[in-house]
Amino acid sequence: MPEAMTGVMPVMTSAYPELEERFRRLGAIEEAIAMLHWDAAAVMPPGGAASRAEQLATLRVIAHQLLSAPEIADLLAAAEGEANSLGAWQRANIREMRRRWRHAAAVPGDLIEALSRARSESETVWRQARPADDFAAALPGFERVLGLTREIATAKAEELGTTPYEALLDQYEPGGKVALIDRLFDEIACFLPELLDAALARQAASPAAAAPRGPFPIAAQRRAALALMEAIGFDFAHGRLDESAHPFCGGTPDDVRLTTRYDEADFSTALMGALHETGHALYKRGLPAEWRRQPVGAARGMAVHESQSLLLEMQVCRSRAFAGFAAPVLGAIFGGASEAWDAEAVYRRQIAVQPGPIRVDADEVTYPAHVILRYRLERAMIAGDLAPCDLPGAFNDGLKELIGIRPGSDREGVLQDIHWYDGNWGYFPTYTLGALIAAQLFAAARAAIPGLAERIERGEFAALFEWLRHNVHAKGSLLSTAELVEAATGAALGTAAFERHLRERYLG
Amino acid sequence: MPEAMTGVMPVMTSAYPELEERFRRLGAIEEAIAMLHWDAAAVMPPGGAASRAEQLATLRVIAHQLLSAPEIADLLAAAEGEANSLGAWQRANIREMRRRWRHAAAVPGDLIEALSRARSESETVWRQARPADDFAAALPGFERVLGLTREIATAKAEELGTTPYEALLDQYEPGGKVALIDRLFDEIACFLPELLDAALARQAASPAAAAPRGPFPIAAQRRAALALMEAIGFDFAHGRLDESAHPFCGGTPDDVRLTTRYDEADFSTALMGALHETGHALYKRGLPAEWRRQPVGAARGMAVHESQSLLLEMQVCRSRAFAGFAAPVLGAIFGGASEAWDAEAVYRRQIAVQPGPIRVDADEVTYPAHVILRYRLERAMIAGDLAPCDLPGAFNDGLKELIGIRPGSDREGVLQDIHWYDGNWGYFPTYTLGALIAAQLFAAARAAIPGLAERIERGEFAALFEWLRHNVHAKGSLLSTAELVEAATGAALGTAAFERHLRERYLG
Repeated sequence: MPEAMTGVMPVMTSAYPELEERFRRLGAIEEAIAMLHWDAAAVMPPGGAASRAEQLATLRVIAHQLLSAPEIADLLAAAEGEANSLGAWQRANIREMRRRWRHAAAVPGDLIEALSRARSESETVWRQARPADDFAAALPGFERVLGLTREIATAKAEELGTTPYEALLDQYEPGGKVALIDRLFDEIACFLPELLDAALARQAASPAAAAPRGPFPIAAQRRAALALMEAIGFDFAHGRLDESAHPFCGGTPDDVRLTTRYDEADFSTALMGALHETGHALYKRGLPAEWRRQPVGAARGMAVHESQSLLLEMQVCRSRAFAGFAAPVLGAIFGGASEAWDAEAVYRRQIAVQPGPIRVDADEVTYPAHVILRYRLERAMIAGDLAPCDLPGAFNDGLKELIGIRPGSDREGVLQDIHWYDGNWGYFPTYTLGALIAAQLFAAARAAIPGLAERIERGEFAALFEWLRHNVHAKGSLLSTAELVEAATGAALGTAAFERHLRERYLG
Repeated sequence: MPEAMTGVMPVMTSAYPELEERFRRLGAIEEAIAMLHWDAAAVMPPGGAASRAEQLATLRVIAHQLLSAPEIADLLAAAEGEANSLGAWQRANIREMRRRWRHAAAVPGDLIEALSRARSESETVWRQARPADDFAAALPGFERVLGLTREIATAKAEELGTTPYEALLDQYEPGGKVALIDRLFDEIACFLPELLDAALARQAASPAAAAPRGPFPIAAQRRAALALMEAIGFDFAHGRLDESAHPFCGGTPDDVRLTTRYDEADFSTALMGALHETGHALYKRGLPAEWRRQPVGAARGMAVHESQSLLLEMQVCRSRAFAGFAAPVLGAIFGGASEAWDAEAVYRRQIAVQPGPIRVDADEVTYPAHVILRYRLERAMIAGDLAPCDLPGAFNDGLKELIGIRPGSDREGVLQDIHWYDGNWGYFPTYTLGALIAAQLFAAARAAIPGLAERIERGEFAALFEWLRHNVHAKGSLLSTAELVEAATGAALGTAAFERHLRERYLG
């Protein structure tokens, strides 16, 4: 017998292969849901919304039925009993199956279906209400989604042994705890105000960087995004770039669908949006192919997912080194005065700090404040301490308090983000957890890869993404978030690397 | 009790509402499948194909399980027993449910799944093999699809009490019989050769119509298609126009997805392709909204579907009246010499007769020959009388015999159509059945609507589509094809109206 065959080899039990087969089917349905979701956001004509809601609700109910079928509980118990005879990936797969089963079994199917329909309807109304600055129009859908979400959170909390808010958080950040988030967010809230003031003062003391004159035609913006995405390593045989109201990375690992949104007056928002989503895309694409459509082959959670988008956008694409690479590319596409396409000018514009009302347009110094506000507000709403009709006021007061800006309208306030309308409660904290993980991972990558900044400046991204693939992407859900961060960086997740990064970039 | 309440009112039985609920769910899954199919053809990057095959196979298996669940047989028997207490639409719905159940119950789920996967894989290979003119590359997938299709045909034939070929035909043209098709096709084959010769001779005797000079930019071609689609009544709030290798009309009644394909040297192919698909789209869109996702709310079959696309393309858009409306629109978009945009020149170009190898580019005089060839070949292959490896020779010989043209390559021969590679066996005859129905319906519409040609020339399509909606679209699957044709036109389906139409247009 060859040596490779004598180690801990996966042994075929009766329960485990049957579970893999059932989860493969579930995974295929979830991929179908992901594609239909992309379609609704990127290409669907408005009149398709009601039918799409039916389609998604039906598929979600079927997925829920597959996952909460009574046999699954028996199969899981049997597979857990035989886990010692399985390999590490299979054992982790069982653990993730159990986690997914817990979430599903806690909630009756009709509640899932009601929420799915409410989400689709509410999202559709939001798409009209946002440009119309009409929170009142979006409110009934919002309230319905919140009401159903609270019901589900309560049911899941009982099954998982957590608070209702943590049960929602666990959907996006498995094992996420408010105690850790509170500690990390408090540390950030402690150093950030002073750091923001210092960064603004330093910025005010420098002359403004030269800026190119718009308008920047959308076709040219798209060309620029495609050129940089391709240089970074996005594989267009396995993905697309389209347009939607709220940029996102959807689709599947073999067919990644990115979106961004364009503003002719400002090329940077669309470009950085596309590069941010490219970070998500490369993670998705790098997930272990041999575990496709199995729970252990999925992304670890949204904090790690956001770490990959923020690592690319904030750590790489807003660095001085990247500006050196990108400036001539952008200059060739957009044309105009050459001093605006000087690498240092491009860099200085990319790291401009400017407190403002819109989260997705926020710089990385003020961004955590946007997240902390939403985290507080959604916890209060889930707890029943804040009524949706009081949300606009609370939102605007909170932003004023945190970064000194009061949104001038609900479009710039509570209507700006899709999350609550689309039912993604408990998602927001993962953005800032992601920023912390990104800073810590990038510091480790810099230590591991000689001359990383110089490589980036030459447009060489292979070594960085090889490191990320090995340490993050290809791990799928084998490890917990905490284990993954510690294995990759040698330290528990903290705020030190993030603070150091901000101090170096904005005060160094 | 008001009089309206004393008639045959739908009474709620225990079985019927449960069937409606189950078929609603099935309908939603089928809509999801339709959207994913559109996506694969129109926007999916090539690397997504394997995952898409998994998604579609899984959804098709689930649809098949829902349809062939043992309870369905019991519910159908119960509902049929209580049918007298139901309304006409409900009774027709039960009849259509029974038909669908028969097709599903005849075939084991693993065979459905195997065919679904084989279809996706074969279609993907075909997409590469066609431009590469490489039938050998496509052959293994073709053989696998054919083998599985024959297995399924045999199983269904037993359940339906038909021949295997008729069992396949029944999937597209419910109740379709080769005896009727043979009779109609023989009638066509009888008058067509002489008519074709006469039309060619008459055409040769006239000076050629002035033609605009290309190239015709794709963006302008798209603008022209959108402008005419909108004038005709396509509702862009409920549909889109995109591009694919093989033009088709997909999506759902509330979200109709058309495609066409562009050639810069020739604007007419893309334009007529889009208008042809618009005919399908208006049918789909006009299906009875109150029966969405129920079998009786679906299109009657592919012969009626094709009748709607051919009525718009051949009867309307290639008429002299339509040329009068469209010529100035096209002239304004494409520009160039004005004599090429003279209405009579546009009309004469649209009705040019030109025997050629490509079915989708064929004029309406030679088109039936393309269909008759494919009908004969696919019957022979299903019967096991023709091996796929012998198909290219048989195809080329057959076309030579029927219209005097031998394809110069397999790209112009057996690789040109997606149908066999994508598993749509038994579909081809519906094109010519559709042409016959179209001619008969349009003759009836002309008799019913005063000044129809003048309306078309003024760009007024409302009366025509109101007539079609009332007589065809809104009927869904209430009537059989034969009943529908007879109710709308006062006569059984025949070849007389088609022959009269050709004689008037090409020899009149």
